[in-house]
Amino acid sequence: MAAESTAAQLTEKHRPTLDQALEAIRTRAYWSPHPEHPKAYGENAAPDGQAAFEALRGRRFELDQPGTDDWTGSEVSPYGPELGITYPHPDVDVLLPAMRAAIPAWRDAGALVRAAVCLEILARISARTHEFAQAVMHTSGQAFMMAFQAGGPHAQDRGLEAVAYAYAEQTRTPDKASWSKPQGKRDPLQLDKEFKPVPRGVALVIGCNTFPTWNGYPGLFASLATGNPVLVKPHPRAVLPLALTVRVAREVLGEAGFDPNLVCLAVDRPDEGLAKTLAVRPEIRVIDYTGSTAFGDWLEANARQAEVYTEKAGVNTVVIDSTDDYKGMLSNLAFSLSLYSGQMCTTPQNLLIPRDGIGTDAGPKTYDEVVSDLAAAVDGLLGDDARANALLGAIVNPQVKERLEAAPGLGEVALPSREVANPDFPDATVRTPVIVKLDGARKLWEGAGTDAPYLTECFGPVSFAVAMDSAADAVDLLRRTTREKGAMTVGAYTTSEEVEKLVEEACLEECAQLSLNLTGGVYVNQTAAFSDFHGSGGNPAANAALCDGAFVANRFRTVEVRRPA
Amino acid sequence: MAAESTAAQLTEKHRPTLDQALEAIRTRAYWSPHPEHPKAYGENAAPDGQAAFEALRGRRFELDQPGTDDWTGSEVSPYGPELGITYPHPDVDVLLPAMRAAIPAWRDAGALVRAAVCLEILARISARTHEFAQAVMHTSGQAFMMAFQAGGPHAQDRGLEAVAYAYAEQTRTPDKASWSKPQGKRDPLQLDKEFKPVPRGVALVIGCNTFPTWNGYPGLFASLATGNPVLVKPHPRAVLPLALTVRVAREVLGEAGFDPNLVCLAVDRPDEGLAKTLAVRPEIRVIDYTGSTAFGDWLEANARQAEVYTEKAGVNTVVIDSTDDYKGMLSNLAFSLSLYSGQMCTTPQNLLIPRDGIGTDAGPKTYDEVVSDLAAAVDGLLGDDARANALLGAIVNPQVKERLEAAPGLGEVALPSREVANPDFPDATVRTPVIVKLDGARKLWEGAGTDAPYLTECFGPVSFAVAMDSAADAVDLLRRTTREKGAMTVGAYTTSEEVEKLVEEACLEECAQLSLNLTGGVYVNQTAAFSDFHGSGGNPAANAALCDGAFVANRFRTVEVRRPA
Repeated sequence: MAAESTAAQLTEKHRPTLDQALEAIRTRAYWSPHPEHPKAYGENAAPDGQAAFEALRGRRFELDQPGTDDWTGSEVSPYGPELGITYPHPDVDVLLPAMRAAIPAWRDAGALVRAAVCLEILARISARTHEFAQAVMHTSGQAFMMAFQAGGPHAQDRGLEAVAYAYAEQTRTPDKASWSKPQGKRDPLQLDKEFKPVPRGVALVIGCNTFPTWNGYPGLFASLATGNPVLVKPHPRAVLPLALTVRVAREVLGEAGFDPNLVCLAVDRPDEGLAKTLAVRPEIRVIDYTGSTAFGDWLEANARQAEVYTEKAGVNTVVIDSTDDYKGMLSNLAFSLSLYSGQMCTTPQNLLIPRDGIGTDAGPKTYDEVVSDLAAAVDGLLGDDARANALLGAIVNPQVKERLEAAPGLGEVALPSREVANPDFPDATVRTPVIVKLDGARKLWEGAGTDAPYLTECFGPVSFAVAMDSAADAVDLLRRTTREKGAMTVGAYTTSEEVEKLVEEACLEECAQLSLNLTGGVYVNQTAAFSDFHGSGGNPAANAALCDGAFVANRFRTVEVRRPA
Repeated sequence: MAAESTAAQLTEKHRPTLDQALEAIRTRAYWSPHPEHPKAYGENAAPDGQAAFEALRGRRFELDQPGTDDWTGSEVSPYGPELGITYPHPDVDVLLPAMRAAIPAWRDAGALVRAAVCLEILARISARTHEFAQAVMHTSGQAFMMAFQAGGPHAQDRGLEAVAYAYAEQTRTPDKASWSKPQGKRDPLQLDKEFKPVPRGVALVIGCNTFPTWNGYPGLFASLATGNPVLVKPHPRAVLPLALTVRVAREVLGEAGFDPNLVCLAVDRPDEGLAKTLAVRPEIRVIDYTGSTAFGDWLEANARQAEVYTEKAGVNTVVIDSTDDYKGMLSNLAFSLSLYSGQMCTTPQNLLIPRDGIGTDAGPKTYDEVVSDLAAAVDGLLGDDARANALLGAIVNPQVKERLEAAPGLGEVALPSREVANPDFPDATVRTPVIVKLDGARKLWEGAGTDAPYLTECFGPVSFAVAMDSAADAVDLLRRTTREKGAMTVGAYTTSEEVEKLVEEACLEECAQLSLNLTGGVYVNQTAAFSDFHGSGGNPAANAALCDGAFVANRFRTVEVRRPA
């Protein structure tokens, strides 16, 4: 009874937020219940969050899960320090059955109670945003403000958005229906029907290094809200943000009278490859994954017992044809290339520029001028070390650094990368982006057997300024890389209706999200929950979009029981 | 201009029907715009339909498709006569590009116009229901009334239901949105956003022998309504109903100003295996399939470039625990076993009956009594040859006949199959169902390595009356067969709340649709569009349900274009 009243209280408390979220995904106007500004969280929130983070370091992260057979963890902050935290390592033969046993009560609670419990989890996470920001910063290498916003309110928004979609989807079919079929002069045929959303089974969330919460929350909350227990398997370098999430979820579930094992954590030993083992377990029926194309493709091919949602790599392109705001374009692009050292799945890589130059409000600009002006804009943006550190964050792993250092070997360097000292974290690897000039002549990329660098992803702060023979060629190259490698984002700058149409048609046909002529404070690499789709789900970069009906509709099934009336 | 006004006219004409369909899938109350009674189609509709069917026989079925390189077809009616119709055989290297070329205009027409065109196609098919009934009867072997109803209005209902879901799904996101994000004292960030549903590519519908229209229409109309051109590859024994469908669709599309190649037909030469070739073509991005588990599994494993929706085989069970209407139960079951000679994917196969007998309103009945009373009920239902022919139809293919003839070797025969003479079609193979008694002792089916006949599907008029040690054992066997082989339907008869709960929980956990205590004119093997789900999509019998959000949501993607406001 205590638990039931808690569920009822949560429903009453969160119903208005749920309704607003449902309205937002219908109108796709701006909305968020999660403040972006660190000061909105109270006077002591920042030091409290910092202290809470420090208190987690150098010890075991207790979760009271069943089937813990070891403790593991070796996170090192990209800013230098080891976190020194160890996490429960699961005996999956014990943990998975315990999670399955939690299903019936959660299933029978219904969509509204599940949504309310999910919203309570998000509200408690929101209240601890400063602590999460520290955890995200010291695992992803994001600068503080980005870790705060993308790892906090923006991630929470994406989680809430998934809950709203899940609730809407499950309630499209009523709980009950009376069916009466006329039979002419005879009595009608009459049935009472009950419809119940049932979960697929245990859901697995495989987290990524760069955006553990932002990329993890949509799948986690979509699966939980549709009745599936969720096993969270974080990236070994970014465990803490998701471990904290699991802890909060378990607390809320327990308080609401549900089995905390509806949300569990699975951290692997070094080189154990636990994700691969878990992904093909028969209990696992839903998988959400963000990471490399190779492992994403492996999951799609091998985890056949599960619905698999993947976000993988892609080649993001900006077509630069012409602009009526040259300065705005340069500063907008400079910011996009610099933010988090280009370590976003949405960062532009290929900048396609006509060899003959472009028209602008500041007169015609040659290809070389555009590239050097862009280099200067990046230089200007990052000229001050404090601002550079606040934008760039740290290089997340050695592979990114290797690609950055190899980039000058690919072509003429228009903007060299430089080291930036970080006085707060002397051991952090902070680097500005590199821009490399490349030839986009059609023969270098058309047909099979071509291997121009811009045909594949070079993840990190590396961009290619590609000299194209024409805007039409640029669109054709955009089509090729999007079709073959995928794209999370496409941008274009043009004042020509004709070129705009060409780019738009290419994006419609190759299924990529397009940002046109961004010159102000919105960047191609940022999407807003409730309004923008993240990815399209229709090109090789991702088989799902955040967030839409398709992202939630197949996480549950509807079972009907019918009886004579 | 002419075409545009036609699209507008169609939208005006069909909007009320679309709105009623949208309301019906929300309430799941009874609704259908397609009359079930043959006389509702006008005085001359029956002879006209018959004449239209006869006029198709013995000649080429012209479709004016591009890339026709041959004529093929060898349909023989299960009632005896050869149809003598040949159909275009496609050069897919010509046909598929022509279909792709039709995409942009259809995509840009928008969800409402696409829905209206689909409804016009359905309306024209509806007007020719008598002709379709003949085509379905002489390809599936269904008796006339069933071919008329299931192949006509019920199939059209399922097509319309899919259009309604497709329309609802595409319009969850608005066409346009204004996004304005407050920035404190600074101007808000403002973007104009456009959202457009885009199709995945060419959709392939692989038809089945037994219900070419009923099982073909949901996928066909779901794909077409979401913007995908549809290539229909019928079962070689049941081409005509889908060829007629393609012809009507092409007429309507052309009249509405769209490329008729949005719907094309692909008929293979004998033993060509065209479905396998088409299924892995890169142009094919959606596949709907009804048929054997083996080929369905092959599609799911190999057609990785496509979204694959399959309905395969399953083992349907009825748990017989107790009843307060013994006569009603027997007559209901007898009808279910007899209808279309048990050749429905929804026909019960395993009748699980306690070895110690059951309680009924007519006193306790032993296992033997239940089985022999059921046999008598079937005998009574089919005692009159005219009524038997009207219910049974013809055996659809030699494999069904072989299984029927092999069934007596599996155990003690409680009801032997008998031949029924059909005076109208002396060459038709008409057979009553066989019921075989089998032992359901737990050791015969628990664990690996067991091979009791009731553990696998025996498609056709073969049922097993399985003697169980208890109702709980029956539910456990139901769980096992549903989990391992799948089930399209589950039935149960019980007056015990406890047993009802056991069966219901098993169906919720194994994800199967449950009909309880059906004793009147609704049968476990029939589902009504707009109200009942056909299959659950959550057990091995089918990976999709007809029809829900998941059936349509991933056939298209939404592309967003955003610009500064």
